[in-house]
Amino acid sequence: MIQPPAQLSSLVTVDDYEVAARERLTPMAYDYYRSGADEEHTLRRNRDAFARYELWYRTMVDVSSPRVATTVLGDDVAFPILVAPTAYHRLACAEGERATARAAAELGSLYCASTLATTTLEDVASAAPDAARWFQLYVHKDRDFTARLLARAKAAGYRAIVVTADTPVLGRRCADVRNGFCLPDGLVMENLVDALPPDLREGAGSELARFVASRHDPAFVWSDLVAIAAQAAPLPVVVKGIARADDARRALDHGARAVWVSNHGGRQLDLAPATIDALPEVVRAVGDRCEVYVDGGVRSGTHALVALALGARAVFVGRPVLWGLAAAGAEGVAGVLTLLRDELIRAMQLAGCPDLESTRDDVVRRRLAPAGSFP
Amino acid sequence: MIQPPAQLSSLVTVDDYEVAARERLTPMAYDYYRSGADEEHTLRRNRDAFARYELWYRTMVDVSSPRVATTVLGDDVAFPILVAPTAYHRLACAEGERATARAAAELGSLYCASTLATTTLEDVASAAPDAARWFQLYVHKDRDFTARLLARAKAAGYRAIVVTADTPVLGRRCADVRNGFCLPDGLVMENLVDALPPDLREGAGSELARFVASRHDPAFVWSDLVAIAAQAAPLPVVVKGIARADDARRALDHGARAVWVSNHGGRQLDLAPATIDALPEVVRAVGDRCEVYVDGGVRSGTHALVALALGARAVFVGRPVLWGLAAAGAEGVAGVLTLLRDELIRAMQLAGCPDLESTRDDVVRRRLAPAGSFP
Amino acid sequence: MIQPPAQLSSLVTVDDYEVAARERLTPMAYDYYRSGADEEHTLRRNRDAFARYELWYRTMVDVSSPRVATTVLGDDVAFPILVAPTAYHRLACAEGERATARAAAELGSLYCASTLATTTLEDVASAAPDAARWFQLYVHKDRDFTARLLARAKAAGYRAIVVTADTPVLGRRCADVRNGFCLPDGLVMENLVDALPPDLREGAGSELARFVASRHDPAFVWSDLVAIAAQAAPLPVVVKGIARADDARRALDHGARAVWVSNHGGRQLDLAPATIDALPEVVRAVGDRCEVYVDGGVRSGTHALVALALGARAVFVGRPVLWGLAAAGAEGVAGVLTLLRDELIRAMQLAGCPDLESTRDDVVRRRLAPAGSFP
Amino acid sequence: MIQPPAQLSSLVTVDDYEVAARERLTPMAYDYYRSGADEEHTLRRNRDAFARYELWYRTMVDVSSPRVATTVLGDDVAFPILVAPTAYHRLACAEGERATARAAAELGSLYCASTLATTTLEDVASAAPDAARWFQLYVHKDRDFTARLLARAKAAGYRAIVVTADTPVLGRRCADVRNGFCLPDGLVMENLVDALPPDLREGAGSELARFVASRHDPAFVWSDLVAIAAQAAPLPVVVKGIARADDARRALDHGARAVWVSNHGGRQLDLAPATIDALPEVVRAVGDRCEVYVDGGVRSGTHALVALALGARAVFVGRPVLWGLAAAGAEGVAGVLTLLRDELIRAMQLAGCPDLESTRDDVVRRRLAPAGSFP
Repeated sequence: MIQPPAQLSSLVTVDDYEVAARERLTPMAYDYYRSGADEEHTLRRNRDAFARYELWYRTMVDVSSPRVATTVLGDDVAFPILVAPTAYHRLACAEGERATARAAAELGSLYCASTLATTTLEDVASAAPDAARWFQLYVHKDRDFTARLLARAKAAGYRAIVVTADTPVLGRRCADVRNGFCLPDGLVMENLVDALPPDLREGAGSELARFVASRHDPAFVWSDLVAIAAQAAPLPVVVKGIARADDARRALDHGARAVWVSNHGGRQLDLAPATIDALPEVVRAVGDRCEVYVDGGVRSGTHALVALALGARAVFVGRPVLWGLAAAGAEGVAGVLTLLRDELIRAMQLAGCPDLESTRDDVVRRRLAPAGSFP
Repeated sequence: MIQPPAQLSSLVTVDDYEVAARERLTPMAYDYYRSGADEEHTLRRNRDAFARYELWYRTMVDVSSPRVATTVLGDDVAFPILVAPTAYHRLACAEGERATARAAAELGSLYCASTLATTTLEDVASAAPDAARWFQLYVHKDRDFTARLLARAKAAGYRAIVVTADTPVLGRRCADVRNGFCLPDGLVMENLVDALPPDLREGAGSELARFVASRHDPAFVWSDLVAIAAQAAPLPVVVKGIARADDARRALDHGARAVWVSNHGGRQLDLAPATIDALPEVVRAVGDRCEVYVDGGVRSGTHALVALALGARAVFVGRPVLWGLAAAGAEGVAGVLTLLRDELIRAMQLAGCPDLESTRDDVVRRRLAPAGSFP
Repeated sequence: MIQPPAQLSSLVTVDDYEVAARERLTPMAYDYYRSGADEEHTLRRNRDAFARYELWYRTMVDVSSPRVATTVLGDDVAFPILVAPTAYHRLACAEGERATARAAAELGSLYCASTLATTTLEDVASAAPDAARWFQLYVHKDRDFTARLLARAKAAGYRAIVVTADTPVLGRRCADVRNGFCLPDGLVMENLVDALPPDLREGAGSELARFVASRHDPAFVWSDLVAIAAQAAPLPVVVKGIARADDARRALDHGARAVWVSNHGGRQLDLAPATIDALPEVVRAVGDRCEVYVDGGVRSGTHALVALALGARAVFVGRPVLWGLAAAGAEGVAGVLTLLRDELIRAMQLAGCPDLESTRDDVVRRRLAPAGSFP
Repeated sequence: MIQPPAQLSSLVTVDDYEVAARERLTPMAYDYYRSGADEEHTLRRNRDAFARYELWYRTMVDVSSPRVATTVLGDDVAFPILVAPTAYHRLACAEGERATARAAAELGSLYCASTLATTTLEDVASAAPDAARWFQLYVHKDRDFTARLLARAKAAGYRAIVVTADTPVLGRRCADVRNGFCLPDGLVMENLVDALPPDLREGAGSELARFVASRHDPAFVWSDLVAIAAQAAPLPVVVKGIARADDARRALDHGARAVWVSNHGGRQLDLAPATIDALPEVVRAVGDRCEVYVDGGVRSGTHALVALALGARAVFVGRPVLWGLAAAGAEGVAGVLTLLRDELIRAMQLAGCPDLESTRDDVVRRRLAPAGSFP
């Protein structure tokens, strides 16, 4: 059992983990994890939006046995706060993605490994062989390469393919441009060693932006998704990066089994809406046709409750996991996930919700806008 | 007659009392009184919400004889600003809850004593034997113990039982977790000496959170309230901690005689709405069936006027009384209550309200975006 | 002709005048002029509200001859920015109210002298014998005294009686309470020398609050206004301090000739709405029955344009005149009024309004509330 | 080809260019460029308003070949971010307007030269002889002089006449008044050498304000536009400075070929609405009758996308070009325009818009209070 080290007991909130992580990370790595696109409106919106929701709690409900276990695409998870795909975990600690996978598995959460991992997807799998894992995919112009990634993910026992839809090109994170962000010597995008341009480290600005520009397919369209879904079969395909009701329906019409409301943590299109504001429209649009997930700005179990109450099947967290990983490796990831789980349970109890279904019943409202408070 | 000492004359607002109190309290005690749950959204919302209301005052009304005396559950009070139950008054001054009871009685206010007092409910009663007092109850898993508390309250002459509905588990106040909050040597929850777990002081984080987890009944439901009400009879039961119209109706349907809109001073579920925003829905829901009280964020008599104008029978204040108590004991409590009463009277006069009934007549508005301007 | 001294040329805005005034005033006097009631919500609202209005200007209108002269109650004024009644001008400069009257007259503005002047109303009149002047009246419990004030005002050639309706008791301005505000030796409320309680300077807190409590009539009601209007005849009566449509109609029904939307500069009931937000309702309520004036938060000619566009016949300014008076006596008052007049003319030209009537035609809108900008 | 010097590579945003420019400009010049009218509400509104819009991006659209070339009044531009007329470019660098013209031409943007240039319109033309250029016109009281300007612009090959409608008098920019803004020795409004009053530099405050007061025609009305349009023929006339739907229609009815929504960068009427908030009404008002342009607060390509999505044919930028010019002359202008173009392209790709037409299709929303929640 992963045991949080003693010093973690002083980390009471996810923000505490961020402070601890920042102390351990290089500025370039911290900036890479923290930053959003351009003016960072959407980065801020994602989190700030939660402060506009109200939880109209119920009282005198039996909350002695809170039930937070659920399933995602049929697989069991112990609680619906799951690990979003983020790149480059070995920037945060030496064990990297394996530590993340191990901690998520132990807590009964689910880890969605990133194509941009600094560990091969096979090594990630071997770190948590019995856990449900998902694999996040960027569709490359080189469709044979893309197909090989899919085949590898299937062979390694991943349970779903998450196709990222919001990254035809890379959003500009100014901090990375200023820092000339690149991976330090010794780290590499392990899943992509066959795909790396020889001159990747040459040039100003972000190395990752050059990679995406050279390899990702900005011509990938809905009809192409059908082929991807066929290649992925029997694994289900989840489309991640949806903000709109019509896109959610299109995803289902083109072979997706679920949709994931995300704006890439505010790292792609600035001025995109907060995901929590987009979620209700997507939930309404798909009705009972599929599960809907969401990420973006979730920094507490209470935030997660808002998302679940608005119809999310599960909530994914990205940066919080990175802060845990940087603060204390697998123990830090476990610490963050435990914290979020316990916050969710407590918030559900205080909201009068003994189980996840009951969170859907009229518990959340968006706050009215006071006329007087704006400039 | 309690006479405010000279130094109190420089305390012109409730916030002044907080400053004076903070100087006298240990940081752990101050944090305990001040803090709210988690990110403290609701703590801030409670107070900030008042700034979104407008008092559309009337002019040229005879306000030469302002009438603020009223009744609560049939008992006379000199003015409708009453003392909410708060824990651990001996943290604030040596005389503790007895000082509070004495000051409230002398002013003609009403003190609702807390189960978590550092003085027995019998001693509180003896400090203000002739005053109307209420007793606040947490329902324990140990129903016999709960019944004994009720019996003691009846025997000691309390006039109503206030069942707190918003605390199936304790909200997490981060400051207390960081401080490892516990009562100092010599202080104990006097009403609960038979109920204290032997190992209460062992463990990290808040001692109170451990106590609540071990003793409070998170399985307490509406149908159980009927039994509590029967045990409390002939004392009336008030349900405190309501935010929703449907819960208010349920309370009445299960034996409550009145409802109290509260979110526990922002200390339980973060992202709960401001109580002043929840009050109107509850008032509409119960109509003429019962009295409605409210607490949360009231820091001036003008705030109290807003609540009364929105339909509250009376307003309870918690932290302001603690600031008074810490600043100058019973004299400080009397100082705060006098200040609030005089502010209420002045605000009513300036609003053109000669009595409490007239405050209900179209004096208050929520500041909203202009009607019709949203597509 | 009053000539602004050279140093005034560096005072470009009304706020500049406030800075200059503050340097010349005692802290007690500055606080008295500046402060609002209680938490000063309404003080801030008055000014901040202007930032929520938009001027949807017209273009290509002939604005070569801007016409800002108008009449109030039949008397000519050169522009519709007039001098509100404020107390104690000799706190600001030795010449006091006479300087104010002289400057207002020279600019063709109108001065409404205060009952609480430090100069007799007769002396004020003699400083500007040919100008239209109004007299502001507080109704005293001593109705004979009140009648004598009215008779004196008539005899001294005042042109209207402004009955203040918002001060049955004095609002609490915390700064004055803290300062123990009182007039310095040598200054006195000259109109009230017969009415001053002998022990006025004894006691804590604001001397003015004690005076108002002892003399003003909090039982003054609408039906009493009929008698006041009869005593004032043939002078017209204006009721100042109105916020509500129903009160505006009541004023007209009880003998008033005009109504003045005011909340006493945020100095009486805190949480009262901004006057500019109350103005449209009053304008709609009275229709063509009377002129409507407004004061509160006007710190520029552009603010004045908003008020005129919303239907005010004229705008009164209080504190700006005091800042001018303190900064440079009569020259400072003239400087402030000139500044405001020129700002109004320029704003009208830029808004495509060649005259005051055209400002009423769809130029102003209240801004929509953005949903995302509130906490 | 203009090559940005090395130091420009550290300028990642338009705001970076402003910082670099400020270091190179005199305070008087910087203030002149930066400032807005009066309290600068509209200056702030212009930019801040963008933060109230949301881009509800589409996914899985083929954005591999973003198409941003378009036409304005039939002339090709490489992308729809064009150079607004601003005065006095030789305050920013010695080459002045010629540098601006050269850089705009090289990028395939369009430069609208200002009447208030410090370079003659003929010299501006000779710097970019083959580029489409527009000429911005203030209508002078001296209509013969105005006619001569028109004739010169036609002779110099300008392609459109932009009549500024929002400047019957000059807005008051307090910074310029405080600074006593005037052109330094050696610089002059070169197009207006025949029109300069002999005593222009005498007097307090802004020299430009005196010039405008002496020369501009505040009596210019819609019917006069017909004559200007006739004089300008065959060049089309664009009316710049429109905020209202009715004015937009009037412009077309009086000979204009296009309208330009602008509030002069917040430098004329304070409290005017943000241009991005006014744009949709103007677009709806003119329908398919003409092209609509907009300027104001655009500091990124994402801002430009919002404007295009709301119906603008092209977006003009003023201050950003000045910051580039001051930072590095023509190279700086080219740097800013390149930055904005690339930001626009990236934002369009991330929004799922392969071309300008597709931006119009439901991509942008104003963030508003939730529908239905206001009584």
